[in-house]
Order: sequence, then C-alpha cells, then structure tokens
Amino acid sequence: MSLPPGLSQGQFDNALSEFRTAVGNDWVFTIDEHIAMYKDYFSPLQNTEAQPIPSAAVAPDSVEELKVVLRVANDYQIPLWTISTGKNYGYGGPDSRVNGSVIVDLKRMNRILELNEEHAYALVEPGVSTYDLWREIRRRGYRLWTDGPSPAYASIIGNTLERGAGYGLLGERAAAQCGMEVVLANGDVMRTGMGANSNAETWQQYKYGLGPYVDGMFSQSNLGIVTKMGIWLIPEPPAFRSAEVYVSGHEDIIPMIDTLRPLRLSNVIANSATASTNQGGHIEGAQGPGGGAGGGPNVDGGHAPGLPGWRARLGFYGYDRVVEANWEQVQDEFASAIPSATFHSSRFAAPYNPDEMLTESKLAAGIPSFQEAPIWNHGGTFVSMVMPFTGADYWDFLQTYDGLYQEYGMRYMGGPLHFHAPRSLMTLAGVPLSSTDNAVNERAMALCENLIRVSGEKGWSEYRTPLVFMDNAMESFDFNDHALRRFHETLKDTLDPNGILSPGKNGVWPQRLREERA
Amino acid sequence: MSLPPGLSQGQFDNALSEFRTAVGNDWVFTIDEHIAMYKDYFSPLQNTEAQPIPSAAVAPDSVEELKVVLRVANDYQIPLWTISTGKNYGYGGPDSRVNGSVIVDLKRMNRILELNEEHAYALVEPGVSTYDLWREIRRRGYRLWTDGPSPAYASIIGNTLERGAGYGLLGERAAAQCGMEVVLANGDVMRTGMGANSNAETWQQYKYGLGPYVDGMFSQSNLGIVTKMGIWLIPEPPAFRSAEVYVSGHEDIIPMIDTLRPLRLSNVIANSATASTNQGGHIEGAQGPGGGAGGGPNVDGGHAPGLPGWRARLGFYGYDRVVEANWEQVQDEFASAIPSATFHSSRFAAPYNPDEMLTESKLAAGIPSFQEAPIWNHGGTFVSMVMPFTGADYWDFLQTYDGLYQEYGMRYMGGPLHFHAPRSLMTLAGVPLSSTDNAVNERAMALCENLIRVSGEKGWSEYRTPLVFMDNAMESFDFNDHALRRFHETLKDTLDPNGILSPGKNGVWPQRLREERA
Repeated sequence: MSLPPGLSQGQFDNALSEFRTAVGNDWVFTIDEHIAMYKDYFSPLQNTEAQPIPSAAVAPDSVEELKVVLRVANDYQIPLWTISTGKNYGYGGPDSRVNGSVIVDLKRMNRILELNEEHAYALVEPGVSTYDLWREIRRRGYRLWTDGPSPAYASIIGNTLERGAGYGLLGERAAAQCGMEVVLANGDVMRTGMGANSNAETWQQYKYGLGPYVDGMFSQSNLGIVTKMGIWLIPEPPAFRSAEVYVSGHEDIIPMIDTLRPLRLSNVIANSATASTNQGGHIEGAQGPGGGAGGGPNVDGGHAPGLPGWRARLGFYGYDRVVEANWEQVQDEFASAIPSATFHSSRFAAPYNPDEMLTESKLAAGIPSFQEAPIWNHGGTFVSMVMPFTGADYWDFLQTYDGLYQEYGMRYMGGPLHFHAPRSLMTLAGVPLSSTDNAVNERAMALCENLIRVSGEKGWSEYRTPLVFMDNAMESFDFNDHALRRFHETLKDTLDPNGILSPGKNGVWPQRLREERA
Repeated sequence: MSLPPGLSQGQFDNALSEFRTAVGNDWVFTIDEHIAMYKDYFSPLQNTEAQPIPSAAVAPDSVEELKVVLRVANDYQIPLWTISTGKNYGYGGPDSRVNGSVIVDLKRMNRILELNEEHAYALVEPGVSTYDLWREIRRRGYRLWTDGPSPAYASIIGNTLERGAGYGLLGERAAAQCGMEVVLANGDVMRTGMGANSNAETWQQYKYGLGPYVDGMFSQSNLGIVTKMGIWLIPEPPAFRSAEVYVSGHEDIIPMIDTLRPLRLSNVIANSATASTNQGGHIEGAQGPGGGAGGGPNVDGGHAPGLPGWRARLGFYGYDRVVEANWEQVQDEFASAIPSATFHSSRFAAPYNPDEMLTESKLAAGIPSFQEAPIWNHGGTFVSMVMPFTGADYWDFLQTYDGLYQEYGMRYMGGPLHFHAPRSLMTLAGVPLSSTDNAVNERAMALCENLIRVSGEKGWSEYRTPLVFMDNAMESFDFNDHALRRFHETLKDTLDPNGILSPGKNGVWPQRLREERA
C-alpha cells in the first residue's frame, strides 16, 4: 500500500477516518483488491516500480460529501485524482500521476438530473455514461439521439471534458457541452454560463452567460471538479443514411482526404466522419508488432498487393430528399476524383430499430455499441495527434511515423482518422503493450516518447495523451518559453494552493509538486 | 481633461511621455477633439458628470509597442480600456468605465495575417473589420464567405470577443473562433490552442490544444488583450436561397417560434435565423417613445388592426436539390402550423453577385451591408437577454417588458429575435436616448435597470450589456453568493494585480477599484 507524499501512516489513518465520516465506511477503498481496480492496465509502466499506486479511493455521493473530501485533502495536503467512471482506457483509465494519490471516484453521482426533449439536452452527473443516457431516452420514448465514443460505458462528463469524439451529428463532444457546476479546490461551488443566475431557465440552452466564459478551463484540467454538466442531444431525424466509400489503393487515401475536406467543411457531410483502412476493425493493425492488417504504409505509394485500401464512413441525416441529394453528390465527387472508389450504404427511417443496424450505422446514429475498439481487449497505448486536413499531410505523417516505428522493430499501427473538428484531421498511433514482458513496454515507451517529440517538431501536437506521456506532450507547446503552461500553473497555484487536485494532469503541476515534472 | 485616478498632472505627463516614446508622438491622443472620439454617445450618462471621460488614448502598432504600454500602465497604475475598433455601439462604443482611463486603441493593428481558402479560415489582428476581410477575400477571388454583424465596420476580434451574432452559417461568432494570441497584463505573450506549439500547422484549424482550454476566459473579459485571432470562414455553397416567412397576427409569433425551434435544432434551417415584426427595419419601433412601428405588443392577443405581424428570415445553403428540399419542407411545416403563413424567397447560385441581392439576402450570405441597424443613427441603449426558445416564453417576455415600459410612459420597443445559439432565443429591448434632454436619459436609465432586475428574476439574464449597466447585469448572476463573479475577481487579482486592464468590464473589478462597483 502506498502513502500520500509526506504523510505518515498515522496521519493517513486519521485522514481515512475523516473520509469515512464524510462518505460512509463502504465508500472508502483501501484494500489491495479494491486499489487494483484503479490501476492503469494500459500503461507501459504497468509492471514497474514507477507505476503510481493510489493510497485509497473515495466515492462521494453528492456535492456536499465531495466538499468534505476536499476539506480533508486540503487539511492533510493529500493529492487527489478525480475520475468520473475511469473508463479513459488507453489514456490512463482510472489511475493517477502521483504515487499515493487518493482517487476521487464519482461513479455514485450518476443521476440524470434533467432530460429535455423540446430543447434536446440533458443535465447529468459524472457517473452517467452514454449508455445510461441512451437507455433513459429509450425508456421515456423521447425522439432524441445521443452521441459519444464507441465504448459507450464511458462517462459523458469524463469523455466530454477529455474532448473525445463521437461519430454522429454532435461528434465533437466539447462543442456539445452547455453549462457546468464546478467544485473548486477550496470547496466553493460555482455554476457557469446562465446557471450562474440562480433563476436561470437556459443553463443548458445558452453556453456563455455574461463576462468571461470559463467552461473550457475545466476541460483536460486540474483546476476544479465538474459535478454537473449540460450536454446537447440531437432531435431524431426523419431519415438517415449510413454510408461508406471504399478506395482500393493504399495511396488513394491522399485524394480521399482531399475530397472529404470541402464536403465536410461545407457540412454536406454533416456528421463526425471517420476513415480507416478497409481491413480489420476500428483500430487497424492492433494485432501485434509488424504483423497486423495495418502493416505499415506503402512508403513507395501505389497499389502493391497486401497493402490495404481505405474506407470512409459517413452519415447523412434529415428529410429523405436531402439525405439522398447529399449522398448522390458525395458519390459524384468521389467517383470523379478517385477511379477506384466504390460505395455502400444503408437507408433507415424513423422509427429506428437498432437491431436492424450494423455497428457502423449505430455509431453514426449515436447508438451505443460495445463491438468496436478492439485495442481495449489486449492492451496498448496511444499517441493522438492533430494535423492539417490534407492528404499530403497525412501521407507525410504515415511515412514519418512508419520510419520511427521501424527504428523500434515495428511497423506503424494506425487508428482511424477523425474529422469531427471539421478543419483538422485527428488520428492516433497505437503501440501494443505486454502484460508480462517489460522489454516490450520499455520499447513502446521509448517509441511513444520519440513519436511525441517528432510530432511536436512537425507541428502535429497531441490533443490528448496517456498519463505517462503528459509532460512530454505538454513540452511541445513551447511558444514563448511555454507561456501557456506558465499561465496554467499560475492559475493552478491561485485556485489550488495546496496542489490537491489531480497534480500533473496534462503537464500542469502545482508549486508543491512541480519537481515531479518528467 | 480627466486624469487617471490617483495620479497628479506631473505624474501623468511623465506617463504620456513614456507612451509617446513607445508608440510615437502621433499615436498618443490627449486633446479634447480627439478624446471626444472615444465618448460613448449611446450612454444615458452622455450629458452628465457621471460619464467617464478618458484621459488619453494610445494606439500601438504592434505587440512589442503594446507591451511597453502595459509596462508604463503598471508602473503608474493607470487603468486602461482596450478597444479593437470601438464600434460596439449601443453597448458602450469606444468608452471606458473609470474616469481618466487611457484607451488602448488597436485600430492600427489591422493586418490580415493569413487567409486560407483550402481550410476556410483567417488569422486577423484587432483592427480588421468584417468588411476589410470580405474585401480581401474578393480581391483574391477566393470562394469563401464571411459572416458577422450587420454593422460590418465592426472589428472581427471585437465582435467575436463580445459574442456577437451574424446571420449566416457561422452566425454564432464565438463558435467560429479558433486560436488566439493574448498579451497578459504583465506583458507576457501567450498563444492558445495549437498555437502554443511554435511549430503548429493547425493553430486556426483545431481549437483546443492540450490541457485547459482558456480562450473563453478572454471573451467579454478584462483578463488579457487579444492581439491575434483565428476566425473560421464558410466555403461558398453552390446554391443559396434567402427566404422569409410572414405571419399576419401579432400572436402568431407564438407558433412561429415553436415551428422554428425543431427546424433550427435539427439544422434544417442551418443559418443564424432571425425574426422580427413585419413593419420597420432591423430594430422595430426605434423611431421614438410610444410611437414607432413596434408600438408594443397586443397583450390581449389576436389580430387587432395596427398591431404588427411577424417575419422570420431564413437561409438555405448547399446543392440545389438540398436547398429546395429543405425550403419546401419548411414551408410545409409553417403552412400546417399557422394558417396566416405566407412565403417569399429568392434563389441565388454561384458565382454570386451582391448587387443582385437585397439586404436580407446579403446578411444571410455574410455579405457586409451598412443599410440596417437604424438605431445607430439616432442613439439608444439596449437590454439584451437570452430566454428559452419557446413561443410561450417570448410572449410572457413581451407582456412583462411592455408592462415595465408603460410604467415609464413608453411602449415596448423590440429588436429582432436571434436564433444563432440554436437552443435559446436572444432578443434585445431598445430604449431611446436624447442627445439634449437629460430627463429622457434618466428615465431610460431607470427603465433599463428595472428591465435588467426583472429579467434576472425571470431567469432571462443578459448575454451582453452596455457599460453603464454592467454591474447591474452581472448582479443577476447570483448563484452561491455570486460564486462566478468571485471566481472572475480571483483570477483578475492574480493575473492583473495592479488592475490596469479594463477595470469594471462586465462587473469584474480589480481589488484596487472594487469600491467602484455600482
């Protein structure tokens, strides 16, 4: 069992006793079997001494209980690490950065506080998953769609704060967020946007309120704990077509991206479209080093046998005529740009029956599915970067990354390309880990650090990163002697002087623990 | 001539001398004729002693010059007030809140630093207006549309930071912002989002970067000075239909709003639609107290003669078939909901010729126009509030506001209803002012304060407010003893300990001047 830094066993026992008074005996976890639930099994450090181990986990059921937890943590200077449901797999899951942290597990705060069909939004607590919300919408018979990541057990608040992506009409999760309740490190409870007016009727309907708009400060952040959040939903469209475009040449990804860009920018393709190789599942090549279907790009280009082609997954929504007109036009554009382009699609109309849909259609309709993301099944870590939305940039990226993988005896293994933020291209490189062989994990870690460094130099900085690479990733945001990180840390020291909230999250350290920066 | 609070004439002369060294003699303004250019002529205080008068204005041409201005202001503890082009008419224009402030006028920083057709964005400095950008797009022959407020001389940065609204596909200006350069009170220069990576290729293409997303902190804010901003543009659509729906009964606004809501939420109406009475121009009833075309709602409802009906202004964009299908569907929906509904529309196709368009079509296509917003021509002030997007709420609002106007011998004068933030309804109440009669202005001020107070109680808080009402408006954001305002002021005291940046902006005061809160 770990202890929080600087605390004696006696002091920690006293703190635990106060935590138990705050949340009840059943909701303070200290035995090894329970602590093991908070381990990051997707970390390259997983079998080493360097892997942080929490000292305890505490699960408050309310804002009032959470405030007491914060008071105790301030009194004892205990670093906390807040999770919503802890399903941030590949990026650190439920684990922390500082050995001996106390995990604040918000899974019990799982109430859907409001679900509004007329204005298409929900107000949720951190323990509510996309699946929970989808089920409640179905139960009430509301004609609303949700959206979210393919692992639908993830917390809506957690995934939105991490700026994840869905596959439907509100795929860019951060843009669908409206209004927050935040508990600051000192226990002060704040509502943002229109919610700052205690009579507000538009907390989940208008984002900004009056004066500085602070919601973004609490995303990917350790400046406060979000306890309520508004999330926008989608009115069920009358018709929907789930579509795929296939191209057979490996190098055809270049014109595919360049054809997608203007269609996505002009909202002809209105959903959070993706592309991937036309072999394997959601994460290509995740079967293992050098082997898998991804198998590295053909750096010489062309249609060499064995190198995969690509498919783009698109969604079209609205009145039947609109859906058909947009889809026909998209086919025309691809057919004229890429000779190898072929098309497949499925048409659906309200009332929708999920049982008639394949996974790709479900995702584009925001219907939770548990069938994708196979990398979760065997362990791996990610480097997730943003680059310009052009074929040339992606091809440069493929070659650069494959070259780096080869230095470590692997070939590039890519994840899908996401076009949720419509002017940029987000993708992720997967690096497999071993649950038993530390040499594999050391090599993975070295590769990832190299990928992050080179990405930073190329201008492809990361949008999100696993715990173990947070300092590396933030390091690449270097403008004017890391002015943005210095700004974050100025805010951190002001808002959380004892440095109790998730120290080190995304490379932002409180004064007291700043020497822990990697 | 005013002096900054606490400064002697000798001290101020020394400061002015340092400002002149920083920006050049020609760009420090102190004579009355120049200072008069920075007066708010739309303030109810305009002819009273309470109207703040700047002590000087300083116009830096670069970030380097601005940094020196900030250093001098810190040395002498001089309150500054930053404007981009100062065209925030009705909300305070170029004026400040503290008597004797030095206006930092950024009009000389008017460079279009980047204009990217492929990814549809621009990077601009504060002095660039919507019209400047539109003209540069035309000069280059790029197939891009801009969007923005009807007074197109307004600064893009200024209007976006104030969270203004346009009329086209990117009408919600704050949502179209991507990446900033900010100069903090201490002169530190920070780039946000991907721009924090000095090699970034996606500064204007992906908003969030890694870690806390801080851009919103600098909107409607006095926490920093935005010196560069990315703004998204719209790829020119192949076809465009500018459309209007008319209803003849005054009470028909109720079903009109309720018919608009689902169409707007589902993006069938994709632009930043508006509605207004079918008489008068952009601001109804602005001709004068009790007289104008707005003339107050019919609080008994119905189709009484003389009470105006309404029109909604809509835009449809994309491929011809899509435009026509959506517009036909919208007509069907209105015809079945409202017997009095009639329709008018004009079809356009690329290449577009602005000379063939009327003002309403130009606005929906983001083409700058100077023909609307007649309230600017004779002076008036605003109360601008956000309410739920329902007919019942708006009708309640009309009756409530008209009742309050009548207490002051006037009838309600409304501005258009804006549906740019698609889950809420924003509108504004106009109150005329006199350039000569203080009694008119005192009555206007009392009415506005009452409107703001009642709005706060009703939950219709303001999204933006004139200088003179900023403390009143922020007062209504009262949750947990004004937790959000306390948070803003904690940040203010940390980031700007001398309180030099725009003290009092939106009710956020630095420690040193906090007793000035109304």
